[in-house]
Amino acid sequence: MASISAAELSKHQSKESCWLVIYGKVYDVTSFLNSHPGGAKVLVRAAGRDSTPDFESVHNEDVLSELPPSACIGSVDLGALKDLGSNSSATKEILHDDPKNEYPPLSTIVNVDDFEVVAKKYLSPTGWAYYASAADDEYSKQENRRIFRKIKLRPRVLRNVDVVDTTTTILGHKCALPVYISPTGLGKYAHPGAECTLARAAGKEGLAQCVPTSPSMSLEAIYGARLSKEQPIFQQLYVNRDREKATALIKRAVNLGATALFVTVDSPVLGKREQDDRLKGETASNYTGIAKVASSGLLNPALTWADLKWIRALTDVPIVLKGIQSVEDAVLAHKAGVQGIVLSNHGGRSQDTAQAPMLTLLEIRKYAPWLIRGKMQIFVDGGIRRGTDILKALALGANAVGVGRSFLYSMTGGYGEAGVQKLVDILRTELHSNMALAGATRIDDIVPEMVNAKRLDTEVFDSPKL
Amino acid sequence: MASISAAELSKHQSKESCWLVIYGKVYDVTSFLNSHPGGAKVLVRAAGRDSTPDFESVHNEDVLSELPPSACIGSVDLGALKDLGSNSSATKEILHDDPKNEYPPLSTIVNVDDFEVVAKKYLSPTGWAYYASAADDEYSKQENRRIFRKIKLRPRVLRNVDVVDTTTTILGHKCALPVYISPTGLGKYAHPGAECTLARAAGKEGLAQCVPTSPSMSLEAIYGARLSKEQPIFQQLYVNRDREKATALIKRAVNLGATALFVTVDSPVLGKREQDDRLKGETASNYTGIAKVASSGLLNPALTWADLKWIRALTDVPIVLKGIQSVEDAVLAHKAGVQGIVLSNHGGRSQDTAQAPMLTLLEIRKYAPWLIRGKMQIFVDGGIRRGTDILKALALGANAVGVGRSFLYSMTGGYGEAGVQKLVDILRTELHSNMALAGATRIDDIVPEMVNAKRLDTEVFDSPKL
Amino acid sequence: MASISAAELSKHQSKESCWLVIYGKVYDVTSFLNSHPGGAKVLVRAAGRDSTPDFESVHNEDVLSELPPSACIGSVDLGALKDLGSNSSATKEILHDDPKNEYPPLSTIVNVDDFEVVAKKYLSPTGWAYYASAADDEYSKQENRRIFRKIKLRPRVLRNVDVVDTTTTILGHKCALPVYISPTGLGKYAHPGAECTLARAAGKEGLAQCVPTSPSMSLEAIYGARLSKEQPIFQQLYVNRDREKATALIKRAVNLGATALFVTVDSPVLGKREQDDRLKGETASNYTGIAKVASSGLLNPALTWADLKWIRALTDVPIVLKGIQSVEDAVLAHKAGVQGIVLSNHGGRSQDTAQAPMLTLLEIRKYAPWLIRGKMQIFVDGGIRRGTDILKALALGANAVGVGRSFLYSMTGGYGEAGVQKLVDILRTELHSNMALAGATRIDDIVPEMVNAKRLDTEVFDSPKL
Amino acid sequence: MASISAAELSKHQSKESCWLVIYGKVYDVTSFLNSHPGGAKVLVRAAGRDSTPDFESVHNEDVLSELPPSACIGSVDLGALKDLGSNSSATKEILHDDPKNEYPPLSTIVNVDDFEVVAKKYLSPTGWAYYASAADDEYSKQENRRIFRKIKLRPRVLRNVDVVDTTTTILGHKCALPVYISPTGLGKYAHPGAECTLARAAGKEGLAQCVPTSPSMSLEAIYGARLSKEQPIFQQLYVNRDREKATALIKRAVNLGATALFVTVDSPVLGKREQDDRLKGETASNYTGIAKVASSGLLNPALTWADLKWIRALTDVPIVLKGIQSVEDAVLAHKAGVQGIVLSNHGGRSQDTAQAPMLTLLEIRKYAPWLIRGKMQIFVDGGIRRGTDILKALALGANAVGVGRSFLYSMTGGYGEAGVQKLVDILRTELHSNMALAGATRIDDIVPEMVNAKRLDTEVFDSPKL
Repeated sequence: MASISAAELSKHQSKESCWLVIYGKVYDVTSFLNSHPGGAKVLVRAAGRDSTPDFESVHNEDVLSELPPSACIGSVDLGALKDLGSNSSATKEILHDDPKNEYPPLSTIVNVDDFEVVAKKYLSPTGWAYYASAADDEYSKQENRRIFRKIKLRPRVLRNVDVVDTTTTILGHKCALPVYISPTGLGKYAHPGAECTLARAAGKEGLAQCVPTSPSMSLEAIYGARLSKEQPIFQQLYVNRDREKATALIKRAVNLGATALFVTVDSPVLGKREQDDRLKGETASNYTGIAKVASSGLLNPALTWADLKWIRALTDVPIVLKGIQSVEDAVLAHKAGVQGIVLSNHGGRSQDTAQAPMLTLLEIRKYAPWLIRGKMQIFVDGGIRRGTDILKALALGANAVGVGRSFLYSMTGGYGEAGVQKLVDILRTELHSNMALAGATRIDDIVPEMVNAKRLDTEVFDSPKL
Repeated sequence: MASISAAELSKHQSKESCWLVIYGKVYDVTSFLNSHPGGAKVLVRAAGRDSTPDFESVHNEDVLSELPPSACIGSVDLGALKDLGSNSSATKEILHDDPKNEYPPLSTIVNVDDFEVVAKKYLSPTGWAYYASAADDEYSKQENRRIFRKIKLRPRVLRNVDVVDTTTTILGHKCALPVYISPTGLGKYAHPGAECTLARAAGKEGLAQCVPTSPSMSLEAIYGARLSKEQPIFQQLYVNRDREKATALIKRAVNLGATALFVTVDSPVLGKREQDDRLKGETASNYTGIAKVASSGLLNPALTWADLKWIRALTDVPIVLKGIQSVEDAVLAHKAGVQGIVLSNHGGRSQDTAQAPMLTLLEIRKYAPWLIRGKMQIFVDGGIRRGTDILKALALGANAVGVGRSFLYSMTGGYGEAGVQKLVDILRTELHSNMALAGATRIDDIVPEMVNAKRLDTEVFDSPKL
Repeated sequence: MASISAAELSKHQSKESCWLVIYGKVYDVTSFLNSHPGGAKVLVRAAGRDSTPDFESVHNEDVLSELPPSACIGSVDLGALKDLGSNSSATKEILHDDPKNEYPPLSTIVNVDDFEVVAKKYLSPTGWAYYASAADDEYSKQENRRIFRKIKLRPRVLRNVDVVDTTTTILGHKCALPVYISPTGLGKYAHPGAECTLARAAGKEGLAQCVPTSPSMSLEAIYGARLSKEQPIFQQLYVNRDREKATALIKRAVNLGATALFVTVDSPVLGKREQDDRLKGETASNYTGIAKVASSGLLNPALTWADLKWIRALTDVPIVLKGIQSVEDAVLAHKAGVQGIVLSNHGGRSQDTAQAPMLTLLEIRKYAPWLIRGKMQIFVDGGIRRGTDILKALALGANAVGVGRSFLYSMTGGYGEAGVQKLVDILRTELHSNMALAGATRIDDIVPEMVNAKRLDTEVFDSPKL
Repeated sequence: MASISAAELSKHQSKESCWLVIYGKVYDVTSFLNSHPGGAKVLVRAAGRDSTPDFESVHNEDVLSELPPSACIGSVDLGALKDLGSNSSATKEILHDDPKNEYPPLSTIVNVDDFEVVAKKYLSPTGWAYYASAADDEYSKQENRRIFRKIKLRPRVLRNVDVVDTTTTILGHKCALPVYISPTGLGKYAHPGAECTLARAAGKEGLAQCVPTSPSMSLEAIYGARLSKEQPIFQQLYVNRDREKATALIKRAVNLGATALFVTVDSPVLGKREQDDRLKGETASNYTGIAKVASSGLLNPALTWADLKWIRALTDVPIVLKGIQSVEDAVLAHKAGVQGIVLSNHGGRSQDTAQAPMLTLLEIRKYAPWLIRGKMQIFVDGGIRRGTDILKALALGANAVGVGRSFLYSMTGGYGEAGVQKLVDILRTELHSNMALAGATRIDDIVPEMVNAKRLDTEVFDSPKL
């Protein structure tokens, strides 16, 4: 393999000729520029120096196999690499924090929100903008949380709560908690191990994980990171417009061991992430917002109820619709024969001012109560931060809840797997204590009359078209 | 024409003799002082120097033709003009910003509110006070916006939203969006092109524009700025007490091509604009607030339902009543045979604490549902800033919405036509995405059950006298 | 009369011997110390120097006639007066502002609240604490205002409002506005002319004034300050425990020309004014809070409905009960045959968290509608600051409203009578405009359907014991 | 007794050998380290110097009798004591404030909250964290107070309120006020006299006191501090898992004179006190939060309704269940035959977002009205700070209210018994005045229609399982 000098590299930093140095090898990506999901410009700006940090911040090594072999045109030696700067503005913009930065010790993390405080401080602006942002004015994101405060608890006393059991069954799999890890994109901004780190921690803590369609690591790596073949793992799907590609992904996931498919239905188009758009505006006019990069090619506005039959025909694993936002669609999902639904507004990232999932749950309680605790499981995500939040969702009819952003924050930089486990520990301890305080020793003991949701009577939609 | 020296000019700066230099010509306005709508003092203070900037900030050149020819008594040469200061305090007070100021590039404008932030920074205090102000404590202005946040969306999923069409028909004219430009006074504070700039941008973007009764540019210029005779344009009317004058204006507008008349009915008298009054208080005791100047001679407290018949007899173009604020008056409008109504509290500028237009819309839904999607079109203005706001207004029964202040802000100083187009682009993109997210591909697909307005049940008036 | 030296005066500054210099005369008040309503200490601290400013800040000259003639033991000459300091801490504490301070010109006062801003800045801490304070946490004071914001207006359009008439009849007297001056104590803190200043301004503006039981000026001076005998003036009464004293006051007032008696019924004991108590705590342990001084001897916790008959027997002028706070008591008042009631919680100064008067008015609308516009007039006070507030109170059933604190603020120091007139002008202009905007040309045109008080449905008490 | 040198002491500061100096005596606590409720570490850190201040901050001297006599191995002379530092970080952390600090004089304390302001400033961080903290996000703590603001008063007028009597009967005992002192742990942080100080002040003021299960002083000292045997005193119980220990405590308390047992039922496990956890995180990884120390060994998650019979069999004194939070459990308590219940969420310290006690009271009013003013007395605690709060609780059905934190704050450091009496004086004066203002002269005159709790209609749970 040819050895290429720094001087030579410096000549190939344009659209006309663009060479990148990744893991010490030199790739000529000129012909690939226009098909790069993140746009050509970000590649050009990464040229002329060691591009490895930029590459690693969003990709795993195996993605290089998608380039034709001929793209690799030589290598640079380690000495030359030193001469190549890596602290250009482009790099800083997307690099996550320096691992040598001192994180506060995990012992000082007391609750779930503490992880967010750390993440906001240590993540790169791009990483933070991608994780934390939501659509438009972020009202739905706020409201998802706020609604839990409006629901009060009615603890029952003098019950024997000496032994409390938080285990439950999610889509046929025993889980340590009625909580699963929601799929989230670009996990590498938080930690190099990304979804693999989550998989290992989930295994140790007895939690199910839902893997995003387009993760930072290869699906093979993630599924392989499980502690055992029995560890439940779900596959999220943005169903590709190209049925062949969609079919390939589904079969690949099922073959790897996916125990359920979570079909995202709340994002036919991308929500407007203004934090992202502002970063774009401040930097370069044709830089594509990171959310747009992440979702590039994933979204399919033409997906309909009819497509579910085709997916059903491909596999026997349970199908869950992620993003149901009305009792009408919950009923349609039930009629469509799916095994589960996630009441979700995508953490407020799709349509701003979309109602909080807990309102949708209350709609279902009121207008389609037969769906509660029926064959189709009901999940809720968005705004879950406390054991009491979980308790409230379950009391009102959810089988389990999904937690997304908080899992990303928990593995930020210095924490990794230990952070994830700490997060689970916090949720478990809080749920455990609050079940005891409420007078419930098993998940099934959590009943509607343990919560006072009266204040929401004035917020639940009253004219569904059923 | 006589050439007049700076020394001579300096002798005519009083009520006794007041000469103004406008476009290099000298006008003796002494006998006009008392009939100047803005009061005598502002003219006196503009004398003795080049008054052109002051003049231009509120008037177009053609207004000079309203002076008798004899008023023009000479000229000054350009050299003399240099000796005449133009930076007196009076000038600064009403001049809009220096065009050389650097505006943030349009690429950094992400949403509608961003234009307001820019406008607040770059407009003159008088311009900002006039545009931004509302009546009394500005509660109605705030509430107009806030009410949209109380309305939640209920997106429907798994519908094919691959192709979304935002076009609609307003008063018989095809428009690219269910949005029109509301009439607003004193457009020149924002941009020298004022209503003409709006007309050109409206043409390019496929929007209808409603021209104010007393614009900064001549009606001829504005109507003439349209890209074609087919471009829809409406004429707002403060119906003059003097029927002859009112008739003249109506005929002039219709002849110019007005395709509808918007008769303002919510301002029989001027609302109390305290931002304005404070500027007045701070400067000169007999300076008239700019809002009072702008509306001088326009308002007609004696206008009644009976007058509509007389207007109807003058022309066949559709008549729209702008400023309906109760279901009772909506029904009266319908009985009066008008073609449309605008539910509006004048952007909070007329009566403070007047209920938000969306509450009036809900009144109509409840007590006169036959008016919704009937022959008479219903428009809403006040507080519209987001695609979701448009979606909510339409779902609850509006045919289109009016946007006023934001259009002024969008053309502020440096932006002009490009700013206006950017504003339209933002609204179109947001509406487009949110229709897709809600599960609607055409305007007619936007239905009541897509919104959860339950929280407003406790705010909708329940005892109309119908 | 003996001439007394400064040296001699300095020996009489104790409880054992206390001499005060007032208007150049020396009074030995030693034997009066224990019966001074404000306590002995304040007198002792005022001794040994010129006490005139202290005296004037709370008393009018005629109060000196209550001392026995023998108390006046001599005089000091003007030269000696100069040697007597008057800027001791005791003086500063109760002195109102230096008249030489520059007040903002009245032309910069735009609304009623502007007067409060000025008053807060220029009044002495004691004066401000007395005027502005309310009971406990001042929730009722806040709520009195806030409730007006919850009531929305529903303007009616296209009515001829060319001529608007704000006059009305209060207790049989024609008034320029449906507004009267509520009785307030210690008016001299605001302006030396106190109630006399109000009387003159009221006469000029056509308003009725209600005189406090214990004003800063003598009743004779106040009643005498009216422009004519026809100028309506009401007398507030804290009915003295001693029937003879009470009788004497009533007869004195009626003889002077009182056209109605306002019997205060909401203050059997003094509310807890903590602003006052804190000033007391900061200064001297046995200093009595100014509110306690002001109400000393006035309150009568033993007053009952039965006493009204006795008052009725004394005079034929209308009797009004000030401080009704429930529909039950409104009905009892009606049965007792009084001519009017004031729905009031004493501006939040009596019982904190007592419901806002507007809620009581809505109670009456709901449970005793026959009282509205009946023979007994209904007034409302507390929190009125806007023309729209007046409009709302009248639409829901009030005949007129009382304004208290704002009148004090309007005459602060530099403003005097002109300030009071400016205040009336603001209220008249606002009411006039808002009647026009609402579609009402006469007070009787102001009807319930002009306001949307729906939000208060969830606040009006629903189980009165009638 | 052997005399031990400072040099010798310095060798015993580890887990292997740990000597403490308390009151001049040296104790070898090595074998006791693992059974110390506060954990071993806090003892080790207190070694090698004079540990008396640390000891005193949480224990009374008599607790030393729980060590085996052989633990005392010698003494140090006073000279040596001087050489021993006592200002280590461990000491500072738990020491309450220096008694020489100047507290603001009691005359400046105007209301109950003022004591909290002082306490926050002068208490040690640990003491403040323990007293002020509540569970999770402290929403319940906040809501307990806020709910009183939502309840409005409806004062009745013209009733003779010349003589107001605030006395009432609590569990058969005449009390000066419908207020008792709630049990609170670790009173020594506030004042060295702790519960004894409260007992003396309660006696002087005619209040009943409820003694915590594990007070700072011995039960003997507290009960002995009463002014007479007739002074009512209640004993709070965390019922020990070990029935023998529980029996012993109950019998000991009853023998000492307990006139009622308050069985805490809302804390089967400890609420999550994050203020506490943060202090722990900041200091040492195995330091146990102070709340965990305080409740160590007290909580019994296995306690059930059935256990009440066994307690009933032990004694005839009234049994009160503290921590009832639903009408269902109120009814169960009634069926169980107890003499009283406390509606309480433990001041927000057990389960966060548990509904406010006042909501539970309204539930009872609505669904089990026969319990109100029945044989079983109903108490409310949490958020009581004002006389009006007491009035509202009583009007809606409570027989008396408990006040906890405020009593701790009132005796902080410099105040002691005088502070406690001042607190009672404030509450008595406020209740007295507000009864007069409301038109009530006796506790029994306080009736539901004196309060307007309409706003809570939308918050009271409506589907109890009765």
